[in-house]
Amino acid sequence: MSVQLVVALDAMGGDHAPRSVVDGADIARLRYPGVTFLMFGDEALIRPLLDGRPELARIAEIVHTPDAVADDAKVAQALRGGRKSSMRLAIDSVAEGRAGCVVSGGNTGVLMAMAKIVLKSLPGIDRPAIASFLPTTRGETVMLDLGANIECSPENLTQFAVMGSIFARTVLGVIQPTIGLLNVGSEEMKGNETVRAAAQMLRTMPLPGIFHGFVEGNDIPAGTVDVVVTDGFTGNIALKTAEGTARLYADFLRRTFEASLFARLGYLLARNAFKKLRRRTDPRRYNGAMFLGLQGVCVKSHGGTDALGFANAVGVAVDLVRNGFNDRIRDEIQRLGEGLAPAPDRAAAV
Amino acid sequence: MSVQLVVALDAMGGDHAPRSVVDGADIARLRYPGVTFLMFGDEALIRPLLDGRPELARIAEIVHTPDAVADDAKVAQALRGGRKSSMRLAIDSVAEGRAGCVVSGGNTGVLMAMAKIVLKSLPGIDRPAIASFLPTTRGETVMLDLGANIECSPENLTQFAVMGSIFARTVLGVIQPTIGLLNVGSEEMKGNETVRAAAQMLRTMPLPGIFHGFVEGNDIPAGTVDVVVTDGFTGNIALKTAEGTARLYADFLRRTFEASLFARLGYLLARNAFKKLRRRTDPRRYNGAMFLGLQGVCVKSHGGTDALGFANAVGVAVDLVRNGFNDRIRDEIQRLGEGLAPAPDRAAAV
Repeated sequence: MSVQLVVALDAMGGDHAPRSVVDGADIARLRYPGVTFLMFGDEALIRPLLDGRPELARIAEIVHTPDAVADDAKVAQALRGGRKSSMRLAIDSVAEGRAGCVVSGGNTGVLMAMAKIVLKSLPGIDRPAIASFLPTTRGETVMLDLGANIECSPENLTQFAVMGSIFARTVLGVIQPTIGLLNVGSEEMKGNETVRAAAQMLRTMPLPGIFHGFVEGNDIPAGTVDVVVTDGFTGNIALKTAEGTARLYADFLRRTFEASLFARLGYLLARNAFKKLRRRTDPRRYNGAMFLGLQGVCVKSHGGTDALGFANAVGVAVDLVRNGFNDRIRDEIQRLGEGLAPAPDRAAAV
Repeated sequence: MSVQLVVALDAMGGDHAPRSVVDGADIARLRYPGVTFLMFGDEALIRPLLDGRPELARIAEIVHTPDAVADDAKVAQALRGGRKSSMRLAIDSVAEGRAGCVVSGGNTGVLMAMAKIVLKSLPGIDRPAIASFLPTTRGETVMLDLGANIECSPENLTQFAVMGSIFARTVLGVIQPTIGLLNVGSEEMKGNETVRAAAQMLRTMPLPGIFHGFVEGNDIPAGTVDVVVTDGFTGNIALKTAEGTARLYADFLRRTFEASLFARLGYLLARNAFKKLRRRTDPRRYNGAMFLGLQGVCVKSHGGTDALGFANAVGVAVDLVRNGFNDRIRDEIQRLGEGLAPAPDRAAAV
């Protein structure tokens, strides 16, 4: 018998919600025994979806919420007006201990802002960050921050390095993760003052991994390091550039196979191999951006994903909880002690 | 008879120089009638390469230089010690009017620094930028800056927008180019202060194109706009992420076709279609980064490229000269007048 785990779902977040959420939960149910669901949202919409799924209905409880956060909501407005929204109440359930983690496909900015207010940052972490996996030649790489923090201090970046590294250890199972700081060149004097100062700190501080030094954009898909650390502005643009380029090449490939009768026949022969390629590069496989550095597990599912993608996001949340990710960060931060204290505290201590 | 144009070549720059440079010039000679070459570098190495190529030798003059800038040279050091280098003397020949443009596959930072010192910026342009083409679903997009300016003011970004737009008009032949400012979201309040201030200026100033607003990383390969404007830090990382992701997918594709006998047979059938795809996505096709905003045409060839890639870089330089790119920028800047004056001048004028 697997350990019980209650997963809170924002059933109203995402383009195809609540259907993609309910269907995704039904897939996740089979993959993760012991998981039960709290589904926050409009009961009139969710109930009929559960009716045809008795096995899911048995482990899912609907918490009716009249409100939902709009996909294009402004953060300040949603924070004020969204206290009874499905997103907010789902996060509240984690803070109150009724759920072990929360998954939402809603507005990223609002989700992060609400999660910060409700769940609070872990001690020693100034700013939570958004992290995700990316496919590489060598397997998978974790990159953070992907957009939560547009401007970052060197201290923020070193904290991202610690969190990313523990993440790679915990979820990817890499014993000594290598950590790279994203920059415009690998030489020490390259880049802006922030990355240079962060590199200086990372070279000397005791890390739960190995600091590789600076990495460049091409090192992300090459899988040069296990963890790529950057600010949210650069990370968001790098992630979306990689995703867009992958789509461009998929498009080129499709057009190539449609170019002639021979090419079409060629595709038929290579079809099974291409099915494997598609599975490997399926964006749904990489769905589920983790909010790291909070006192609670919160995972953002892509708004446009389907049931399979949503089930993967649930899987990420389940992995983080079952592997005790937050406890490990807490331990590591404590172990690093003063070395990771935020700059103002350090200054005050002098 | 085509108009005569002297192209200065840094024959010592690049991993496979001087062979790739001489062989590249031989390819360019056939493509661009009327072009002649000044080849700067070690005569003892270049002369034997020309000996077997009487037609190239007839239009190529070797200017012997004992020094060359090392690929890993530090900028300050190379500026001081490299006054007799092949790179420096090739740039000098443009300033002195002996050549119409210069192409080098050497160290980018040194090339930009030397070009700025020798050729100087165009009036009204505070900071030259590095621009390049990228393949997109819709054709090609120009992106700048790609690494010359790690930190940029809003004024710098607006000048990049003007230069990129004239570039798209002149070289790509787009009559009303659309211009996008790279950001982490498309809404007005997204991003940092610099991009928001630049967007504010671009919305109101008269531009040689249409300001589309903010674009995201995925808009680069999607070809949403003709010109993508960003600072050199973000631009460099986005470019290298796109290049690396393209390599990752080429690698996935190769492995897919090798996965089984059927897949290999499929490749044989689709081979011709894939040849076209390879031609279309060949990085050598996109070789030749333009230094925009200088009083003289300077093109950087990729250090690792071969003769074909180098010939393409020569082609970019020839296009810029023959289309009167710098005159057009000069005219446009004059036309925009005060609207584009650098911030300090404007402040002084108040």
